[in-house]
Amino acid sequence: MKIELGAKNCLYPMATTIVGANVGGKPSYCTIAHVGIMNLGSISLSMAKVHYTNIGIKENGTFSINIPSIEMVKETDHCGLVSGKNVDKSRLFENFYGKLKSAPMVKKCPVNMECRLMKTVDFPQHDLFIGEIVATYCDEQYITNGVVDFSKVQPLLFVMNDTSYWTIGKQFAKAWNIGKGLVLPESPKNQ
Amino acid sequence: MKIELGAKNCLYPMATTIVGANVGGKPSYCTIAHVGIMNLGSISLSMAKVHYTNIGIKENGTFSINIPSIEMVKETDHCGLVSGKNVDKSRLFENFYGKLKSAPMVKKCPVNMECRLMKTVDFPQHDLFIGEIVATYCDEQYITNGVVDFSKVQPLLFVMNDTSYWTIGKQFAKAWNIGKGLVLPESPKNQ
Repeated sequence: MKIELGAKNCLYPMATTIVGANVGGKPSYCTIAHVGIMNLGSISLSMAKVHYTNIGIKENGTFSINIPSIEMVKETDHCGLVSGKNVDKSRLFENFYGKLKSAPMVKKCPVNMECRLMKTVDFPQHDLFIGEIVATYCDEQYITNGVVDFSKVQPLLFVMNDTSYWTIGKQFAKAWNIGKGLVLPESPKNQ
Repeated sequence: MKIELGAKNCLYPMATTIVGANVGGKPSYCTIAHVGIMNLGSISLSMAKVHYTNIGIKENGTFSINIPSIEMVKETDHCGLVSGKNVDKSRLFENFYGKLKSAPMVKKCPVNMECRLMKTVDFPQHDLFIGEIVATYCDEQYITNGVVDFSKVQPLLFVMNDTSYWTIGKQFAKAWNIGKGLVLPESPKNQ
């Protein structure tokens, strides 16, 4: 039996990310799991306006998205607990820069994307930043057959409903493939 | 060593969803994993303009997002392989309606959200639909302590990099908690 839960967001799990930007020339980071894919070349970040890192994204028009592994759960969670207004978050992570020169990336994260800000959509309490991915970096040991291997990355998945971190499981089927040849009933399942 | 992979989207895994809308009064469905969270009450869907279901979303200003479990992998994948232009997709799933009356939801999916279209952002080849969640439904057996239990739902995760479906793993840490008390070094990790 279906139970109505109210207007509850259940679009989880989501990849937990560490967003990097320079604020006043100094790296700042923010842990964000309310992310999205706009298309193959662009992504979105929903960031509450109180975040210090938002200042840097607006200042430079650039930012990074870094994918931590489950081994980094303590630093990643801590990064979401303290504000760059009070704590110098450049103490958290060793960084590197790429093509954009102004988007600090977290070296320890297996995967890093540097992005150019394309558009900001204004929500009452959030900045929705839409960014074009300019370049992606990955440590060698997380790559299999030329692509990022998430069984090696072991990303940190976030579920709001139970405010927990989850692991990824296993690859078990090929997309655009396993559903081939399914035979549909002749008539609608219902009207 | 970091390897540059080009501008590769690695914001995966993403929850695979079945999006429902009525086209000409008849349910149509589309499998979409390029989704996002805008804030706690709203979500985004990035849907290529060629999709038949887009017509229904624009027509009614309503749609549903349904979370299939891994058991539904064949139907879910099939739904993404065929177009409502050629196949009557109301043959795929038994549906039900909620408050909005015009957003068909997939009964077999453990979790269903009905949404009101708030905004459409135009990308060259995609409609980015931003929807407000109006109500959420879940079958009793997927709920633990009053919230959706993703270990019971067993959502179908999508990774574009290897075009595969993945399972969710295990809940292993509490968010906004496990990082408490981490002691940072006195000085920046690097300048």
